[in-house]
Amino acid sequence: MIYFDNAATTELNESVLDSYLQVSRKYYGNPSSLHSKGEEANSLLKQSRKQIASLMAVEPEEIFFTSGGTEGDNWAIKGTAIEKVEFGKHIISTVIEHPAVIKSLDQLEKLGWDVTYLSVDAEGRIDIEELKESIRKDTVLVSIMAVNNEMGSIQPLTEIGKVLEAYPTIHFHVDAVQAVGKLDLHLAESRIDIAVFSGHKFHAPKGTGFVYLKKGRQLAPLMSGGGQENGMRSGTENVPGNVALAKALRILLDQSAEKRRELNRLKRELTDYLSIFDKVTLFTPENSAPHIVCFGVHNIRGEIIVHALEKVGIFVSTTSACSSKRKTKTPTVQDMGYSKNEAESAVRISLSHYNTLEEVEQFKDVFNAVYHQMKEIE
Amino acid sequence: MIYFDNAATTELNESVLDSYLQVSRKYYGNPSSLHSKGEEANSLLKQSRKQIASLMAVEPEEIFFTSGGTEGDNWAIKGTAIEKVEFGKHIISTVIEHPAVIKSLDQLEKLGWDVTYLSVDAEGRIDIEELKESIRKDTVLVSIMAVNNEMGSIQPLTEIGKVLEAYPTIHFHVDAVQAVGKLDLHLAESRIDIAVFSGHKFHAPKGTGFVYLKKGRQLAPLMSGGGQENGMRSGTENVPGNVALAKALRILLDQSAEKRRELNRLKRELTDYLSIFDKVTLFTPENSAPHIVCFGVHNIRGEIIVHALEKVGIFVSTTSACSSKRKTKTPTVQDMGYSKNEAESAVRISLSHYNTLEEVEQFKDVFNAVYHQMKEIE
Ligand SMILES: Cc1ncc(COP(=O)(O)O)c(C=O)c1O
Ligand SMILES: Cc1ncc(COP(=O)(O)O)c(C=O)c1O
Repeated sequence: MIYFDNAATTELNESVLDSYLQVSRKYYGNPSSLHSKGEEANSLLKQSRKQIASLMAVEPEEIFFTSGGTEGDNWAIKGTAIEKVEFGKHIISTVIEHPAVIKSLDQLEKLGWDVTYLSVDAEGRIDIEELKESIRKDTVLVSIMAVNNEMGSIQPLTEIGKVLEAYPTIHFHVDAVQAVGKLDLHLAESRIDIAVFSGHKFHAPKGTGFVYLKKGRQLAPLMSGGGQENGMRSGTENVPGNVALAKALRILLDQSAEKRRELNRLKRELTDYLSIFDKVTLFTPENSAPHIVCFGVHNIRGEIIVHALEKVGIFVSTTSACSSKRKTKTPTVQDMGYSKNEAESAVRISLSHYNTLEEVEQFKDVFNAVYHQMKEIE
Repeated sequence: MIYFDNAATTELNESVLDSYLQVSRKYYGNPSSLHSKGEEANSLLKQSRKQIASLMAVEPEEIFFTSGGTEGDNWAIKGTAIEKVEFGKHIISTVIEHPAVIKSLDQLEKLGWDVTYLSVDAEGRIDIEELKESIRKDTVLVSIMAVNNEMGSIQPLTEIGKVLEAYPTIHFHVDAVQAVGKLDLHLAESRIDIAVFSGHKFHAPKGTGFVYLKKGRQLAPLMSGGGQENGMRSGTENVPGNVALAKALRILLDQSAEKRRELNRLKRELTDYLSIFDKVTLFTPENSAPHIVCFGVHNIRGEIIVHALEKVGIFVSTTSACSSKRKTKTPTVQDMGYSKNEAESAVRISLSHYNTLEEVEQFKDVFNAVYHQMKEIE
């Protein structure tokens, strides 16, 4: 069994699961309770926040626990919209954002907000000039992802940040769900106001995540209530989940340069191999994230390849898991200028640092066989 | 160690944790992925939904998984407000709702909605006549909790439902977080449109919960995105959490009549005993939920009792965990007509079906000693 669908979700790390277990059993108190069972839980929560902050090189007060990436994106977008409603209702984003962003913006558009969607080039990157021209007096938010989940393309966050230096009141939100561990965000020094992370993409439990919110930035809560997370995200805290999340992040970022080098090596092996086949198109551009390879076999629908590989125990995806079952947005491949037909052929391999060169070698053999089996090609 | 703070949160059931573990290890796929790892996860998710629906005697399509009670309440309220914005901006609720409701309403008020807060009587119950008089042409939502978390008081949901029969377009939202397993909601036959549940209140993992939304009712999503949960609540599903949640609910509702009888017996033992002390006031009214006993010792702040009991290994609360550390609303005791001073004396014992008569007997001895130690009383 080879699991190459890590951009969809990852296997829970066994030692992370063990922490979850220990905390669940021993420290089940409510952090808000006055007694020692509450205090213990609260102190673990604090510790996790501190650990995540230190790993991200930011302040603990800048870290807010959530239930995942979708919550983070919704909070960043809707929270900014509500917080800044008196100052303007214009938002800038891109056509290739994750549905958690696109659909949040759809909802705001129905309620009277105005959204400009930046296009992307053949490399899946926005045009800085187009961004500059899109900024208006009433722009309150720029929401641009770090790494695209279908393609692995990386946005020029530093350049975007430079443009936004001149507009200090515009919130700069970055969906960093596919970026963490894959590229350096330098949050503290960056212009980024809000960055969103999801645990299950890096071997932490499902239903966990966190948001970085730069000190001094205001955001209306999406979840109001008991005042947890400094009043910014209410709800009884998932202490075992958050402890596990912190541990998974520590493991992810431990020797991350080495891990990235290794991922890049696997990716290079894959792209080099796939390039041999004349009916294969590589959609993933150069200089993309180290864990995603998106390609297509001419005139063969992605599902066919997914199922053919699955039969021999290799799990890959047709671009994003979200859009594979429910059409929620145009495929990024199409946004990059490929045809609908080409987009429908898209297959995504996504790696984690647990994948090995051996697995890649096995994939090559299997793919070669699958490729030659495809009747439509012969 | 005696844990009497189950309204704040409960210990995770060991067999529920075991299910969480099994699913986490074996079925980590993303339910939206096309391959068998996705299918397996999706089938477990479906099964959990079906199980919860069957336990609640409703349809699987009426169950939506969330991250907990706070999310459910926020979704019900903000989702209704947005969904029905064109029809009106008036909401009716009560002064004793959980902060997840009160603070959501606060946010809406700041954005232009109008909220009527019904008062409660000395029993912590609303007045049906006051409700009738509060309904306006532009009322879109009535949000009233089933069981109050501080006091255990039960609202007359059937009577409220009868009043609302005449207003079919008004959403009737019930925060049932403290009610599940404690009283019968008869959701399918009731006028209730939306009911909110939280897993960690009944020995399920933290960060889990579900919402009942009656078929045909429209609710704008709070979390937009990949279209999970039938487009109503996006975000990669917490499959292990949801499987565990379903199991915990099954355990909770298994022989629930018997469990309730037993809880009521423990409660009666506690209230009978506490009534003996002339400086003790019982705040919890008659005919309240079987798991909550709220009382105060005259002129002694609740914290003092909490810490005195804690020293001998008994964990109780000063009313709700949420408001114990952060003042987010007026204590329910005060809303019932008691003084601020009396409200500050409030101590809450909250039981689960894992508590025993033996523990109650131990509590009695300890409380007797604590009571007589209190210098202020002597
Ligand atoms: C780029 C990106 N943003 C947001 C999300 C949503 O995160 P989650 O699945 O934790 O809700 C995902 C994954 O689905 C993603 O890849
Ligand atoms: C009545 C009531 N509603 C809502 C909540 C919030 O639920 P959660 O803690 O799962 O966010 C609680 C518990 O804190 C509660 O007791």
